[in-house]
Amino acid sequence: MAQKPSIPKGTRDFNPIEVAKRNYIFDTIKAQFQHFGFQPIETPSFENSETLMGKYGDEGDRLIFKILNSGDFLRNVELSSKFLKEIFKKCLENTFLVIYKKKFENVSKDEFENEIDSENLVKFFEKSLFSNELFLNTFSNNVIKKIKSEFNKKEPYIFFAIAKYMEKTVVDNDNLLKYSLIFSKVTERAIFANVFIEDNFKDVANKISEKALRYDLTVPFARYVVQHQNEIDFPFKRYQMQPVWRADRPQKGRFREFYQCDADVVGSQSLWQEVEFVQLYDAVFSALKLEGVTIKINNRKILSGIAEVIGAQDKLIDFTVALDKLDKIGEEKVKEEMLSKGISKEGIEKLQPLFELQGDFSEQIEALKAILSVSEEGKKGIEELEFINTAVSELKLQTAKLQLDVTLARGLDYYTGAIFEVSAPEGVKMGSIGGGGRYDDLTGIFGLKDVSGVGISFGLDRIYLVLEELNLFPETISESIKVLCINFGEAEALTCLKAIKVLRAHGINAELYPDAAKMKKQMNYANKRAVPYVVLVGESEMSSNTFTLKNMANGEQQQLSLEDLITTLQ
Amino acid sequence: MAQKPSIPKGTRDFNPIEVAKRNYIFDTIKAQFQHFGFQPIETPSFENSETLMGKYGDEGDRLIFKILNSGDFLRNVELSSKFLKEIFKKCLENTFLVIYKKKFENVSKDEFENEIDSENLVKFFEKSLFSNELFLNTFSNNVIKKIKSEFNKKEPYIFFAIAKYMEKTVVDNDNLLKYSLIFSKVTERAIFANVFIEDNFKDVANKISEKALRYDLTVPFARYVVQHQNEIDFPFKRYQMQPVWRADRPQKGRFREFYQCDADVVGSQSLWQEVEFVQLYDAVFSALKLEGVTIKINNRKILSGIAEVIGAQDKLIDFTVALDKLDKIGEEKVKEEMLSKGISKEGIEKLQPLFELQGDFSEQIEALKAILSVSEEGKKGIEELEFINTAVSELKLQTAKLQLDVTLARGLDYYTGAIFEVSAPEGVKMGSIGGGGRYDDLTGIFGLKDVSGVGISFGLDRIYLVLEELNLFPETISESIKVLCINFGEAEALTCLKAIKVLRAHGINAELYPDAAKMKKQMNYANKRAVPYVVLVGESEMSSNTFTLKNMANGEQQQLSLEDLITTLQ
Repeated sequence: MAQKPSIPKGTRDFNPIEVAKRNYIFDTIKAQFQHFGFQPIETPSFENSETLMGKYGDEGDRLIFKILNSGDFLRNVELSSKFLKEIFKKCLENTFLVIYKKKFENVSKDEFENEIDSENLVKFFEKSLFSNELFLNTFSNNVIKKIKSEFNKKEPYIFFAIAKYMEKTVVDNDNLLKYSLIFSKVTERAIFANVFIEDNFKDVANKISEKALRYDLTVPFARYVVQHQNEIDFPFKRYQMQPVWRADRPQKGRFREFYQCDADVVGSQSLWQEVEFVQLYDAVFSALKLEGVTIKINNRKILSGIAEVIGAQDKLIDFTVALDKLDKIGEEKVKEEMLSKGISKEGIEKLQPLFELQGDFSEQIEALKAILSVSEEGKKGIEELEFINTAVSELKLQTAKLQLDVTLARGLDYYTGAIFEVSAPEGVKMGSIGGGGRYDDLTGIFGLKDVSGVGISFGLDRIYLVLEELNLFPETISESIKVLCINFGEAEALTCLKAIKVLRAHGINAELYPDAAKMKKQMNYANKRAVPYVVLVGESEMSSNTFTLKNMANGEQQQLSLEDLITTLQ
Repeated sequence: MAQKPSIPKGTRDFNPIEVAKRNYIFDTIKAQFQHFGFQPIETPSFENSETLMGKYGDEGDRLIFKILNSGDFLRNVELSSKFLKEIFKKCLENTFLVIYKKKFENVSKDEFENEIDSENLVKFFEKSLFSNELFLNTFSNNVIKKIKSEFNKKEPYIFFAIAKYMEKTVVDNDNLLKYSLIFSKVTERAIFANVFIEDNFKDVANKISEKALRYDLTVPFARYVVQHQNEIDFPFKRYQMQPVWRADRPQKGRFREFYQCDADVVGSQSLWQEVEFVQLYDAVFSALKLEGVTIKINNRKILSGIAEVIGAQDKLIDFTVALDKLDKIGEEKVKEEMLSKGISKEGIEKLQPLFELQGDFSEQIEALKAILSVSEEGKKGIEELEFINTAVSELKLQTAKLQLDVTLARGLDYYTGAIFEVSAPEGVKMGSIGGGGRYDDLTGIFGLKDVSGVGISFGLDRIYLVLEELNLFPETISESIKVLCINFGEAEALTCLKAIKVLRAHGINAELYPDAAKMKKQMNYANKRAVPYVVLVGESEMSSNTFTLKNMANGEQQQLSLEDLITTLQ
């Protein structure tokens, strides 16, 4: 390998300081998870494909990293999929050759092969196929129009056209040998056409890959709960902090491998859990000294209720997508969008109080009560929000604030009750740093019905950036060892190692510089690693059984006994 | 999904207790790594394929999990590899059909399709092809013999035979349409033949997969060091604890996803590091209370020296492979094996003192000195071992013992100096629970020459099994919460949550049962989760501002103020 090695796009190496900072966040979250009674589980990095596929929508499916079957992975691929079979058959029918005959009759085999590179082939089809009488007579205008447009749009489709064409035409078999190359080319490309077409592409993918990297922690968790339902004591409070992988286009702050930190409870519908999750967010961010985050809360039932009131039950998604943009595009544009989606003018007028929502949580609730007085579901949503708000007010938050946000929707398809989102303290430009909600049928996808779940997630990478921006990482994080012993030679080194052994037993991170290198080099190393103390043991120290301790910050030196050395460094 | 979900073979779910036990091991190792001055790094789960492929031998390459390119992953596959092109061409030459003609003339299309399933096809080829005059005349006896043997050995090769056959024969083109299906079948299978053949298989794999899951931590570490060489202060002491993946056949104790825990130093040849690693092993296993492990040590230079002395320098691998079996098969069989590998009788006689090695480390060293007195390399190896042994004796080990084992070879190709292996305490049946050594050219594979490295690894899964067998996991590991508050209703629950908030702030893991369910159900839950204490708050407690604390082990109950509750639970 000549060039400098690199890592796949969207992935990251973490150096010691980065690992330390990340672990600081992990450990802080983990400690709170445990204080709250959550228990850790871990699931495999890859799941069976059928566990993941179809759970995240088409876009999600596309972003799932698939693992090639090991060994002869193509064993199960039937390239004889219907279409391919057709193509082969048609090739053998030799119905297509005549088109080429004239053009290539006097061309040598080598020239011929050059001639039919893909670009020429395409051009040639365009000219000869689309002006060929037989072709034009064979298909209806509509079909030809479609083939032409496909042809311009997406090269591989040409082979559908060819296949179709060949199906209908019968010509002589002369010169088979000479033109065999065309077929080889056409057929080869037909195979591509076959796999390019999405259904077939998926087909092939499913056959050569039966495992896929975890896309999130929620689906594996649901799978875990169903698989181990007999061993689990419900309600089951679990946390999970593991990497997930997405074949997303990498961009600033978006990676192809990243950690998710999730806490969920399944098997109870109690609203105390929503209360606990608000407290948990508060506890974690307070422990991280990230003060002033806003925990936004909403309820799916409120959104449904509003949609009901304005007669847009069937447009719930359109309605919430538009409402969700209120912050960004303002009231008028939101109304325009709703109108354009077919929500009635009268309905939108009923929303007016929503746009004028003001005041604190309770005041907003009162306004919502007026709007939602005729919706049973809406009233249920209000009741739930009130319960949570009252309990949280009684229990008090340390540094976060709870805020009602009726525009909050997140993955609406998913949530059935509470919806949470956490935003960084004011002044920090960053998307949400956490989110979650209640979903009444988490495990239904795996056949276990009526298991309600509620959970929240922490956005590690964004929290990292926020802590970095606000300079909130503890200073000691970058300290890997407390003391480096300078190496003056064999006997001195051994003396140092004896002391180091004792220091380590006292929990003090210590090391010996491995080579008896020049003093300057060793001190340089100490400086670069930001070691706070250096120990020097030369002949005089050895004979007096002492250690010279140098404070690297102020340069002060002390001559100490081992006991005093321990005390000073502890 | 109707059936119960499952996970891919060779992977594992870990339940809360298993995670806790695993984390206990991780945390213990990590603490010692840090005491010894190692710094953590993390690398991506997947690397570019070229980073990994070719680094672990052919067998390793096969065991690497490859990730399918995302999107239209087949874009870069040229199915028109030379062979495939030939096949297509030959198919179109229609030279082959005549063989089938007679057999299938009166068969309907449907019957025909059934008829030509692969087994029939193979049988038919066998009969008709190998008794066909044209075929027999076309090829030399040798070629036919070869084709026949391939045919019997490996089905796909039949298509080579067919291709070759078709090349040489020219027949009529009648009934093309009818027989097209045969071609489709033959051609389709020819594609398989193509990909079954290893070179082509690898070819296709390389084109549809450009990333692969990490196979170990050493190669990614070497890649890391080279890629970040300008940011690293050498000597660089890093540790890394991350999962790796291998497409090995799963079996007891061997998984497809497992953690490696590695500590390495690069950029110094100092033998103090070998000394430190012996101490590190001792420190970790002592901290795990796993007393009496044996740290076996050897040196590649000793092995080379012995091979030199007995005139088997060119048979170093054969020699060490045989010697490595001494424990299992005994002296005589080892000698037989050496003899069979071409090591001379005289050479083997010189080994006699080796088979009679006895006594402690120093005594064995003395014996080795006699054997190796004529080998410079061997003497260097002895010198290194002596240095390490002397230093370790001076520094003393806590609970482990260091033992010279001249039969120890491990990945000999890899190591250039010290070789380590740790075995569990006597009486525990378990392979090595750790291993490592020095490798003088770790980063050379990525173009950075002359960087010496030395490192060790801990076998997490095996250590887990050993601790389990010896019952060495601390009892408190399974304790997830210290106290569960029973839920008697809304007001009581809120009172509990207020207390819980304070308990958590004091580092006590506590939770409220989320539903005001029957007492029995809640107590059951407490029992199943092995909660040591339960708090009961009813009306009387609320009015007296106290908490009833029940000790689940002995059933004792106390009525306590919040302050006393904290003190009792801390």
